[in-house]
Parts: sequence; C-alpha cells; structure tokens
Amino acid sequence: MTLDQWMNHMLPEIERELQVQIRRLDQPSTSRFHETIAYHMGWTGSGAGPQASGKRIRPLLLLLTTAACEKDWEPALPAAAAVELVHNFSLVHDDVQDNSDVRRGRATVWKNWGVPMAINVGDALFVIANLAVMDLSRSLPPELVIRSARILNSFCLDLTRGQFLDMSYEERLDLSMKEYWPMIGGKTSALLSACTQIGALIGSASELIQEAYRQFGYHLGLAFQIQDDILGIWGNEQATGKSASSDLVEGKNSLPILYGLENSEDFRERWRSRPIDFDQVKPLSDLLERIGARHFAELQVREQTSLALAHLEMATPGGEAGKALLELTNQLLNRRS
Amino acid sequence: MTLDQWMNHMLPEIERELQVQIRRLDQPSTSRFHETIAYHMGWTGSGAGPQASGKRIRPLLLLLTTAACEKDWEPALPAAAAVELVHNFSLVHDDVQDNSDVRRGRATVWKNWGVPMAINVGDALFVIANLAVMDLSRSLPPELVIRSARILNSFCLDLTRGQFLDMSYEERLDLSMKEYWPMIGGKTSALLSACTQIGALIGSASELIQEAYRQFGYHLGLAFQIQDDILGIWGNEQATGKSASSDLVEGKNSLPILYGLENSEDFRERWRSRPIDFDQVKPLSDLLERIGARHFAELQVREQTSLALAHLEMATPGGEAGKALLELTNQLLNRRS
Repeated sequence: MTLDQWMNHMLPEIERELQVQIRRLDQPSTSRFHETIAYHMGWTGSGAGPQASGKRIRPLLLLLTTAACEKDWEPALPAAAAVELVHNFSLVHDDVQDNSDVRRGRATVWKNWGVPMAINVGDALFVIANLAVMDLSRSLPPELVIRSARILNSFCLDLTRGQFLDMSYEERLDLSMKEYWPMIGGKTSALLSACTQIGALIGSASELIQEAYRQFGYHLGLAFQIQDDILGIWGNEQATGKSASSDLVEGKNSLPILYGLENSEDFRERWRSRPIDFDQVKPLSDLLERIGARHFAELQVREQTSLALAHLEMATPGGEAGKALLELTNQLLNRRS
Repeated sequence: MTLDQWMNHMLPEIERELQVQIRRLDQPSTSRFHETIAYHMGWTGSGAGPQASGKRIRPLLLLLTTAACEKDWEPALPAAAAVELVHNFSLVHDDVQDNSDVRRGRATVWKNWGVPMAINVGDALFVIANLAVMDLSRSLPPELVIRSARILNSFCLDLTRGQFLDMSYEERLDLSMKEYWPMIGGKTSALLSACTQIGALIGSASELIQEAYRQFGYHLGLAFQIQDDILGIWGNEQATGKSASSDLVEGKNSLPILYGLENSEDFRERWRSRPIDFDQVKPLSDLLERIGARHFAELQVREQTSLALAHLEMATPGGEAGKALLELTNQLLNRRS
C-alpha cells in the first residue's frame, strides 16, 4: 500500500472517531456549543471542508507508527483523535492569545463568538481529548491507557511551558537563539513526539524503540517548525496561504528573527521600533538574508531532518506502513507550503 | 476525631500534594510561570495565606468520603489534588470570561499578568489535574485510575456545558427558572458530585453506594449555590467579603433573578435597561423580596439540603469520618458567608 492508500483508509476513520468524541456535546441545550466546535473542526459553517479541517497530520503520524510496529492501528484510533483534539485546543487558545483573526482561511472562533466562548471551546476540546484517551480501554489493557494519558498530558504541560516562554519573550530585545529551542520544543515538537511515542507504545514496541520513535517525532517537529519560520519570512504567499511577510509584521519569535537579534545591531535597532510596516518587510528580510539568517535556518532544517531520519531508521519501522511513514516524513520535510 | 481534627490531618497533606503536583512547572526557565500559579493558589505574593487559598472544600469532601467508606484516605490524595486543581483552572478562566478583577480579596491572574497568560495558567492547572489523577496509580489498581479519570473529565465536560449556558444566557431576557438547573448543575454541582463519587470509588464502595454519594454531592452543590445566590443579593457585605449588591450589578443568572424575570413584568423591565446602578440595588432587591424570590430560593435550599442529607444517609457513611462528613455538610449548608 502506498501512503495515499493508507491515508484513504485512515483519514475517514480519524474523522469518524473525532465526530464520535465531539458528539458528547451535541445535546439539545448545548447544540449551539457543539456547532462552534464543529465549525472549528472544519465540518460546518462557511468555508467548511478539508481545507478548513487541516491535514490531520498528528493522528496520521500516530496511526502509521502503530502500523509500522506491525500491529493493528484501529485500536489506536481514540488516541489519534486525542492528539488532534489537543492540537485544536491549543490552536483555539493560541488564536485568542495572539489576537489572530484568521485560521485556515476562516474567521477564528473568538472572532466569531467572542473571547469568553473561545476559551470555553478550547477547554471543552481538551476535556474531550482526555475522555478520548480513556476510550483506548475499549480494546487495550488499562496499564497502557494510563501510560498513554500520562505521555499525552506530559506533552501538554510542555505545550503550556512553550506558550509561556513565547509570551514572555514578547517584551524582550535581548533574545538569542538559545531561547528558541525550549520554546519551540514545547510548542511544536512536544505534540509530534507524543504522537510517535504513543503510536509505538500502542504498537507494543520495546522501550528502546519507543524512545527512537519519540526522538523521531521530536526532531521532525523541529525541522517542520524551522521550515515554517523560513516560509514565514521568505515563503511564497500563494503557497502558504498567508502573507509571506507576516512573521516580521506580527513580531514572531521565529528562528531567523532571533538570529538577527543575536547577530545584527542594525536588525536589533529596527526590531526595537516595532511594529514593522509592510513597506519595511522587504528591506528587513533582505537584511536577514545578508547576515546569514536564512542560510543558518536552512542548515538547522537539514540537521534536524537528518536527526529525524536517523531516529526513524533506529526505530526500524516495518512493512508497508513503515515505508508510508518514511514517505509522509519526506513529504512533511520537503513541503513548499 | 472531630471534623476539626480530621481537617488538621488532611489539610496539610492536601497542600503538600498540590505543591508536589504544581512543582512540575518549577524549572529554571519557567520559574516565573510557576510563580503565577503559586500566586493563584494563595501560596505567594501579596496577601498570600489561607484566606487567599480558599477552603479546599472539594478535596476535603473527597478524602472524607473515602474515609467514611472506612478505607485509608491517603491513597486518594492525588485525586483530592486533582479536583482542587480543576476547581482552580475553572476559576482562572472564569475570571477572564467574567472580567472579574478580584478573587478571594486579591487581584485575579489576568489582572496581574494579562489575558493570554491567564488562559495559559488555567490550561496548565487543568493539565496538571490530569497528571495528578494518573498518580493515583502510585497505590491503586489501574482500572480504578481510569475510572477516576473518566469521572473527573465527564464532570469537566459538564463544567464547560454549564459555562456555555451561563454565557449564552447573557443576552436573553426570556429566561425562566428551568434554565437555571442545567447551568448550575454543570457549573457548581458537577464537581462536588465528582468529589464524592471518586471518594466513594476509591473507598471501594459498591455501585449503589457510589451513586448515593454522587447524588449527595450533587444536591449539596445545588443547595450551596442557591445559598450563594441569596447571599449575592441579600447577604451581609462584611460576611461575604464582597459587595452584597454585586449579583444585581453584575447581572448574574442567579436563581432569585431568574425568578424575578419569570414572575415580574416590573423586574423584567428594569433588567432590560441594564447595567443596574448601585442606587437601584436596594429598590430592586426589595422588589425581588416582595414578589417572593427570596422565599422561593430559601425553599429550594431547604429542598436540596433535604435531598443531600437523604442521599448521605443512604450512603451509610461509617465511623468517625462519617460523622465528620455530616458535620462538614452541615457547616457548608448553615454558613452565613
């Protein structure tokens, strides 16, 4: 089976499991509450569809990992739903925290229903994620359910740590690249490593193999995020669906920007006088490129990619699912959007 | 042992367990994050102390229930910490959602550190609550850990439902008392019933006895909340530590107010022209009293109190802990503040 065939099998099952989990809120008195969540998940409202749902990469990664351990992936479905729910909980709260109006081409939850409702929508998604993990006990032994819940929540704690660091950096001009890794490790990589670790756990992998999968997910997350950072400054607007200049205008703590703060007095000066106007974007991104920020970030992507692939090899993914997992990894790392 | 003696035993252990759980965030890079949580828990910052911590009623209720099942209460400590953490997660988010500046006599988290940080603090408290439940596996069998986590998260889902209903009522003038029960059932009673149900579960009580304890907690929560509603309009300002007029000024969906909306055209008219000024408070509370809102609410407290006590009796709490549980219940239901 090719990756596409695996995806054709898994994606509808992931969607079905997500709907079963979220349906807990679909009662007469809270049907409007259910609607806000269905909207965010990309199922209803204007612009609904696959584009609005996102790519469900995290649950795919989890299920393919279980399958690459040569075990049935179906029993892992509640965990796959859980990681996607956690991801979406963090997006809904993130959009409030970052004051972002648009997500996947549509108005964000807080933009549509206000901040108090959006906080509650995020909370509900996280509660449902935890209930979903418990549903692993449908077909898996209780020790394994507890272990999965512990992994997931440990990584959620990393997520709040990464979020704290990101927010606490906002006022600072003395940032350097060493501040980047713990922040992005929590915000992006933690959940991906939870996906591969839980997938391997449910696949009955040994501790050693679980650890290799965990590291694979971690470095994959870092490589993915740094690519995103590069696209956020030099990306093609059409390909990413957001303004190529946004990270400079939005003042994000991305790797090229931290490189600039650490290595260029000139960049630091201009950063001090934020917000950055759109007409400053081109000269600033050119400055960053000139001082080597882009080259440095690309080197980091290559290094993290190598580490990810080396750990994936150590994990010895098996069968056709193993090949598909490698193919998914390559797709994620070679994306242009 | 008297209730006071039980409390002298349990309260320091509850505090210690809470500190162990929250210490997960106390790392060099996130020590300031840990500080915001320690502040909210009442441990640090200006005004720190028992007054700022709250009464830890929920963990006490849980532990006393386990003890009243004539089992050791110490293995239940992680669950006791978890319910207190869930309670505090909901308070932190609630304060953002209600735009409340003051909690237990101190500035709220969002007031001190801003809305984005407060959302993250609440999220972290909830994550830690889930990690705490998993720590039950220190001394309890895994099936029981999963069952506890499921109960806790089901009640958290009720919490988000109650919160949704409360917020969605804000714009409505056609509210009646039937809208009160599902809202308050989720917002206040759900967590208390989770406390008594989990306490009984860990106390190895039969399904029947667990259900009796659950109902006891549920009705106790309703009685407690309606008393709070009465105090929120007619309470003595000195005793409650907040302005006696606040619920009318703040436009809360409390039972006497919903009674007024259902039964008095006059009250409805004045409610329509919110916000209510402080000088309107006395005439409005007099109006509510005249049309029977206070009497009605007091009847409901008595009815819910009877139901709570009847279920507690059915649960056959044993030993000195059983007596202490009854004593705590009576204290909660006879409070004047």
